Amino acid sequence: MSPDPRNPYPTVDVIIELDEPGRPIVLVQRANPPLGWALPGGFVDYGESLETAARREAAEETGLTVELVAVLGAYSDPGRDPRQHNLSVVFVGRASGEPRGGDDAALARAFDPAEPPQPLCFDHGLILSHYLAWRAGLRPGAPVQNWGV
Amino acid sequence: MSPDPRNPYPTVDVIIELDEPGRPIVLVQRANPPLGWALPGGFVDYGESLETAARREAAEETGLTVELVAVLGAYSDPGRDPRQHNLSVVFVGRASGEPRGGDDAALARAFDPAEPPQPLCFDHGLILSHYLAWRAGLRPGAPVQNWGV
Repeated sequence: MSPDPRNPYPTVDVIIELDEPGRPIVLVQRANPPLGWALPGGFVDYGESLETAARREAAEETGLTVELVAVLGAYSDPGRDPRQHNLSVVFVGRASGEPRGGDDAALARAFDPAEPPQPLCFDHGLILSHYLAWRAGLRPGAPVQNWGV
Repeated sequence: MSPDPRNPYPTVDVIIELDEPGRPIVLVQRANPPLGWALPGGFVDYGESLETAARREAAEETGLTVELVAVLGAYSDPGRDPRQHNLSVVFVGRASGEPRGGDDAALARAFDPAEPPQPLCFDHGLILSHYLAWRAGLRPGAPVQNWGV
């Protein structure tokens, strides 16, 4: 973190739908403060596209290979993360297999998105409410792009 | 610009539709390299939401008060800007009045989006092709959010 940041820090989060009955989604129990449950995600590296960062963070924190299917939105309220101003581009993705925690995630588990565990960190409760509307066909998402980087 | 950036720089661009017959859009002639025509836009300030940055940059570069109506997408190909890795969240907005250049924009003018001036800077030709699909109802966009900051 820069002592005098001039811009917010770009991050990504991914709502991973599992290819199972009821399409549960994967949440991770954070290994570092703020503690609680969260969507898998993290910082975008310089020279890395948002899509590559989303797939990389999902793999690091859940062990899953994720196919991205939509951009749910961009979340940039300066108060959304208590540590610093992190903005997040949030993707919806799909994967098969059993999630397992790794990296910043102490644990990764599948949940019914309508009944997520508590506490949820950051603005991830708001994001999940938007995701439920997207899933119900009530909220549009933007297309995913693939820059190959 | 940091000598050793760890993350891409977050920016915003806005496709401003004017409330006139044919719904022309506003492009600006850049005052600084790379020279050419571009969408109004710029860097997001620390502590500022993407939406506020988009309205601020649009006002600075075109003099227009813009109402944001959709998020067209997030553009993050590391090669999209020759200067450094800038990612852009692109909004569609609406405004009334006569655009006038300011700040980084030497000139601001209204164009038929299907016949933009050349050269177009960055990946703004690609973005305009996505916008034309959005305008035709062939490409979804994500909802705009308003954090009030």
